[in-house]
Amino acid sequence: MTTTEQETPGTGSELDWRCINAIRFLSMDAVQKAKSGHPGAPMGAAPMAYMLWNRFLKHNPANPEWADRDRFVLSAGHASMLLYSLLHLTGYQLPIEQIKQFRQWGSITPGHPEVHITPGVDATTGPLGQGFANGVGMAIAERMLGATYNRPGHDIVDHHIYCIASDGDMMEGVASEAASLAGTLELGKLVCLYDDNNISIEGDTDIAFLEDVPARFRAYGWHVIGPVEGNDIRALETAIREGRDETQRPSLIVVRTTIGYGSPNKAGTASAHGEALGEEEIKLTREALGWEYPPFEVPGDVTEHMRSAVSRGQQLEAQWHKRFEAYRRDHPELAASFERDMAGDLPGNWDSELKSLRGTFDTPVASRAVSGKALAAITKNVPMLVGGSADLAGSNNTQVEGRGHFSAHEPQGRNMHFGVREHAMGAISNGMALHGGLIPYAGTFLIFSDYMRAAVRVGALSQQRVVWIYTHDSIGLGEDGPTHQPISQLMGLRLMPGMVVVRPADADETLEAWRVAMERKDGPTALILTRQALPPLASRGSEASAAGNVSRGAYIVKESSDTPDVILIGTGSEVQHALGAADILSNAGINTRVVSMPSWELFESQPDEYREHVLPRSIRARVSVEAGTKIGWEKYIGLDGVSVGMEGFGHSAPGGVTMEKFGFTAENVAQTALKLLRRQV
Amino acid sequence: MTTTEQETPGTGSELDWRCINAIRFLSMDAVQKAKSGHPGAPMGAAPMAYMLWNRFLKHNPANPEWADRDRFVLSAGHASMLLYSLLHLTGYQLPIEQIKQFRQWGSITPGHPEVHITPGVDATTGPLGQGFANGVGMAIAERMLGATYNRPGHDIVDHHIYCIASDGDMMEGVASEAASLAGTLELGKLVCLYDDNNISIEGDTDIAFLEDVPARFRAYGWHVIGPVEGNDIRALETAIREGRDETQRPSLIVVRTTIGYGSPNKAGTASAHGEALGEEEIKLTREALGWEYPPFEVPGDVTEHMRSAVSRGQQLEAQWHKRFEAYRRDHPELAASFERDMAGDLPGNWDSELKSLRGTFDTPVASRAVSGKALAAITKNVPMLVGGSADLAGSNNTQVEGRGHFSAHEPQGRNMHFGVREHAMGAISNGMALHGGLIPYAGTFLIFSDYMRAAVRVGALSQQRVVWIYTHDSIGLGEDGPTHQPISQLMGLRLMPGMVVVRPADADETLEAWRVAMERKDGPTALILTRQALPPLASRGSEASAAGNVSRGAYIVKESSDTPDVILIGTGSEVQHALGAADILSNAGINTRVVSMPSWELFESQPDEYREHVLPRSIRARVSVEAGTKIGWEKYIGLDGVSVGMEGFGHSAPGGVTMEKFGFTAENVAQTALKLLRRQV
Repeated sequence: MTTTEQETPGTGSELDWRCINAIRFLSMDAVQKAKSGHPGAPMGAAPMAYMLWNRFLKHNPANPEWADRDRFVLSAGHASMLLYSLLHLTGYQLPIEQIKQFRQWGSITPGHPEVHITPGVDATTGPLGQGFANGVGMAIAERMLGATYNRPGHDIVDHHIYCIASDGDMMEGVASEAASLAGTLELGKLVCLYDDNNISIEGDTDIAFLEDVPARFRAYGWHVIGPVEGNDIRALETAIREGRDETQRPSLIVVRTTIGYGSPNKAGTASAHGEALGEEEIKLTREALGWEYPPFEVPGDVTEHMRSAVSRGQQLEAQWHKRFEAYRRDHPELAASFERDMAGDLPGNWDSELKSLRGTFDTPVASRAVSGKALAAITKNVPMLVGGSADLAGSNNTQVEGRGHFSAHEPQGRNMHFGVREHAMGAISNGMALHGGLIPYAGTFLIFSDYMRAAVRVGALSQQRVVWIYTHDSIGLGEDGPTHQPISQLMGLRLMPGMVVVRPADADETLEAWRVAMERKDGPTALILTRQALPPLASRGSEASAAGNVSRGAYIVKESSDTPDVILIGTGSEVQHALGAADILSNAGINTRVVSMPSWELFESQPDEYREHVLPRSIRARVSVEAGTKIGWEKYIGLDGVSVGMEGFGHSAPGGVTMEKFGFTAENVAQTALKLLRRQV
Repeated sequence: MTTTEQETPGTGSELDWRCINAIRFLSMDAVQKAKSGHPGAPMGAAPMAYMLWNRFLKHNPANPEWADRDRFVLSAGHASMLLYSLLHLTGYQLPIEQIKQFRQWGSITPGHPEVHITPGVDATTGPLGQGFANGVGMAIAERMLGATYNRPGHDIVDHHIYCIASDGDMMEGVASEAASLAGTLELGKLVCLYDDNNISIEGDTDIAFLEDVPARFRAYGWHVIGPVEGNDIRALETAIREGRDETQRPSLIVVRTTIGYGSPNKAGTASAHGEALGEEEIKLTREALGWEYPPFEVPGDVTEHMRSAVSRGQQLEAQWHKRFEAYRRDHPELAASFERDMAGDLPGNWDSELKSLRGTFDTPVASRAVSGKALAAITKNVPMLVGGSADLAGSNNTQVEGRGHFSAHEPQGRNMHFGVREHAMGAISNGMALHGGLIPYAGTFLIFSDYMRAAVRVGALSQQRVVWIYTHDSIGLGEDGPTHQPISQLMGLRLMPGMVVVRPADADETLEAWRVAMERKDGPTALILTRQALPPLASRGSEASAAGNVSRGAYIVKESSDTPDVILIGTGSEVQHALGAADILSNAGINTRVVSMPSWELFESQPDEYREHVLPRSIRARVSVEAGTKIGWEKYIGLDGVSVGMEGFGHSAPGGVTMEKFGFTAENVAQTALKLLRRQV
């Protein structure tokens, strides 16, 4: 096989093929140098990726943050070298030294693409299916921002979302969920190239994946193109154009490729997937593809041709800026608002309505209900805060009246219906955040955070600003029973780096929790909210104000008259019982301090002095009270304290009953503290 | 509307409708009494459920454990009262008092069905999609056990798996994944009734779910029947028969129903879904359906008709027992083996091959590799141990040579190809365990345990015996980088009640970890295994044997010459560094104890004396070493110890480099201990 042999009539110029082969060899050489990585997918998918990037992708290598660029998501993140090769060759800030340092300590070319590490990467991918669903979220964002900001004669938001997905992406449920929603929403700007190489790690995809993928996507309402032969670059060009030009439905382009294409002995085999080809096989591949350049050398004509993306991109962005300035003249406020939204900045008055809610809840109210009111208040000033629920809007209090519902026919609607698809909701929300211009929120029951945990984790890793609204946060939800009662989920979210978890104890803490979430730009916040009503802490003896204190993570809500004998630490719905216990203990002559601790992460980020002030090292008689797993609370109670918490699963019964039976009462907390103190004496 | 009006010509007898209405009223009255629950789905689905149970379901209410019964999974678990009504009416051990105690403390009628609570419930459902995928697992088990045990003239395993699923189930990715695999595997004994009521909680399903479900299932290779009108019981009968008789493909019967059918004001509305109808509306529904009986009263003719299931069931089981005795005569060993497998008992010699591996690993080896050898050894004597990987068999070492691959054409194959479908793998494995006769195992990278966490949790809640094999268990996996490096997952599994997590430190600990997993009958075990090679602990100074110690959860691998100044606690790949640190510290004159702690849960179940022996309360200078989140380790190190662990995400680089850079070295552990001791002095 030679370069010429690839050129079946009309399938592309010599230069096109040299560029494609440059991508292939950069990829396989980098993997070989690292002795780690995935050469096969880049080799098979290089033609489609090249055609997309060279003929269609609207981007500017000099400014990877250009608001109206097309987005590109490599959902098959293991093919990272495909993307790094494209970024390098088209002139992004990714010099050849970084390609040589693929997968090494300190490089910006990690094993899988990471959006906060490498300029030009639009999404952190690798865990399969996530990128595909991110793409759906980006397409939602494009549609919604277009509906918000475009005006007749001013299409300032008008770009496409392109995605390359693998067999593995197609098998993952999160992609199925997202594809179904994308079809329902008629996301015409979304174009997914399906790299159908018929090979999975365990062998031929037939062993586990005999379904008819095109028929499935047609059932979702997608526009399905192909199959297209993966080396037929004219057909690829036609197919991508067709996908781009279809505006009513998302497009799936089925591309039949050969994994490890060009490798005489490994093409079409699973062994080309996840390991370096080996020096000898790469040599044979060089011969087979007629590639005469040593590793990491890119011939001048290829560089010149690929780097044309820079001037093209600058020109494209310049044209857009010109159009944007015209827009600014006609719609100065909209233009300012668009720029602010894309920068992720909040308007100066963002919290005026939120503030006005402070102190207005003087009877018991569920924190989920307060959250709903907070959302309504904030969105008045922050239209870019958008989201919804996985079919539990009424329970999660995520719906904001008067904002419509986002759909194909109401693109300006700002309440999302995600359907019963928690995992896709997670990845789609990440995609909306990745796109920029929106602050997404997404709600479900806390128990179902498990369904979406993989997406939430990638969002935390990639530092995306999303507000997760998790209601029905404990056995206090009652009758739905153990299948729905979260035990490990709250602590599980705290384990996740990059996540801020806030579990407010009353209405005012809930308002402050929303403040924390809104002011956080560099990562997600999880709000943990009750189904059941919570009394105002003030009505139970709190002496402190939530305002200015929730953001510190923990604070003293009731101080003992003298040096505390015991410290009671509660979160959320259990702080009331800690306060009640303090009354009982004080009556028994025990000096008791009560700490409300809505957020571990915020408390840990406080200065040592503050933390020592709240929880002095010398006071070891400590009791934590939280209706979730006890495991983890030793962080604050140590080896000498006691947790009032859960050890097993819950029980189906009215919430007041479950709470009492499992010991979440003032009396039991007080008794627990007394026993603890006696043991120490 | 009256009962008679429902009887359009040829759609069933008066008695059929009385039975159907009995189900409806038991359901709505129980929900009303509880003032909590989901009446709408039972009211709409009662006809299909009645026809299935009355005309087709092979079961014996007197013996819910009969091996060859049909399985019934109510994937739409929120419709629990439908199932409880059926169990009560057909004569299971579910008296009317339990129906009256629906969703109350101490009842066996929890909010959603729980397999370990209520006789006759075949799967714990409620979290949507799980039950559907459980059904796929049960159908796999039926096929595999049939291929193993049936002999010409002796079909002792020959039953169907029936499932009722809702719109919500259809939207969940886990069901999509499972459906695709079920189509590939041609699971003809699986029949799913899709309760297509077009209503979701947020409103009409059109808002988020416009896909063509039948077309999607056809794309998966399913046999799709319908749509059938939900009150046309003759059509339902024909459809169920057609589904049952189709042997080559799983069947989906699309049934168009009306949620809350019969309720004059709430039928067809979302409000009928998740709350009691109200006394007044129930009264109106009684009038509309011509139901003259007070709440919880079942007319005699209905009871008589429904209870015929008891005599029919006893007859069916008696016939089967007769056939089984004939089988026993012809195949005594197979019969004994079948009974043992169905009881979940291990053969007496189960561990003979496993034992012979002890002490045979004297050079460094990855715990995943040892796990693969353990699996090969155990399966020689325990054929019922079956499973596979979500397309990472080679990396997870889950494939056992010589056992074939389970497929439509090789039903006796015992390696599973789950495809890139972690979540379905989890729920399918649970379903295999629920069926009985098999001990399923399932592997993927530890990071992807997040994808399947919802299924793993339901398995733990429902006490199902599954071995989860999680490899690539830390940043030590290296180059794949942060997208693939687990930080929170190991601790996250420990948070889950009912789960036993074992992270072995070397080859011998790995063999013992498998022993723990095999001997555990009442819940899942997660094995946490390395990608990288681990030296035998003995080569690093361990003085203890893994045998007999791993099952205690933690044990002293190196004792200090005098009362310890410091205790180093390590797990898995980090124990070697704790041992190395002990050498350094001992040389510096510091009395150092090293504890290997493969399993928190096993350690916690030890007597106080043993725990005090390993970790004396008086010794507070403690250092934990684990390449995962530090959060949680305070359980053992308290407020005075230090963790060597992870705080952020990892980094893409060779595993040896990441381990060293993040401080997992003997030197750093020793330095950390020294600093700790100095601070205390």
